[in-house]
Amino acid sequence: MYVVNKDSVSEEKVEEAKNTTIRWLIDEKVAKNFAMRYFVIKKGGNSPFHSHDWEHEMFVVKGEGYVYDGNQRTKIREGDAIYIAPNETHQLINEDSETLEVICLIPL
Amino acid sequence: MYVVNKDSVSEEKVEEAKNTTIRWLIDEKVAKNFAMRYFVIKKGGNSPFHSHDWEHEMFVVKGEGYVYDGNQRTKIREGDAIYIAPNETHQLINEDSETLEVICLIPL
Repeated sequence: MYVVNKDSVSEEKVEEAKNTTIRWLIDEKVAKNFAMRYFVIKKGGNSPFHSHDWEHEMFVVKGEGYVYDGNQRTKIREGDAIYIAPNETHQLINEDSETLEVICLIPL
Repeated sequence: MYVVNKDSVSEEKVEEAKNTTIRWLIDEKVAKNFAMRYFVIKKGGNSPFHSHDWEHEMFVVKGEGYVYDGNQRTKIREGDAIYIAPNETHQLINEDSETLEVICLIPL
């Protein structure tokens, strides 16, 4: 068993994002199949608009914002689970919340 | 893209658990590799003490409690990420919080 609090994991700036940090809560040193990361996007920030051939499973822990797919914005808020399929373009945007905080899992 | 709020997903009683419900936020109809479930354990409740050959990745969204492995209890609280390896016995216990609320991911 492995237990770690998000506040004790080092917070790194996300490249090509704005006002966004990542903490790797469960990575390949702990798990084999999927990794858990914790993103904090401050007000006015966003993740990169991008796509890749792996999926995301996300959960909004705090705040609200949008997921932009290139055509439209979908509102997201605390308690939302989000699935982004492989190769879907996506971007998280925080316009109004102090912080938008999201768990994001990816396959390893 | 798929977005669903936990509050709009049906809450089911967990068999062999006490005061515990599950909501399947992302299941095999949406995703291929792993599923996201939302557990609520009310005060005095617990999940079954059990093991299985797949892992868990959990995140404590609200409340605090314990993970029991058959030998010792490890305190868990909001913001904790938890990895349970395949075949590790485990049980979640809520003694003192109004609710212990935990995201739990499993491979599909």
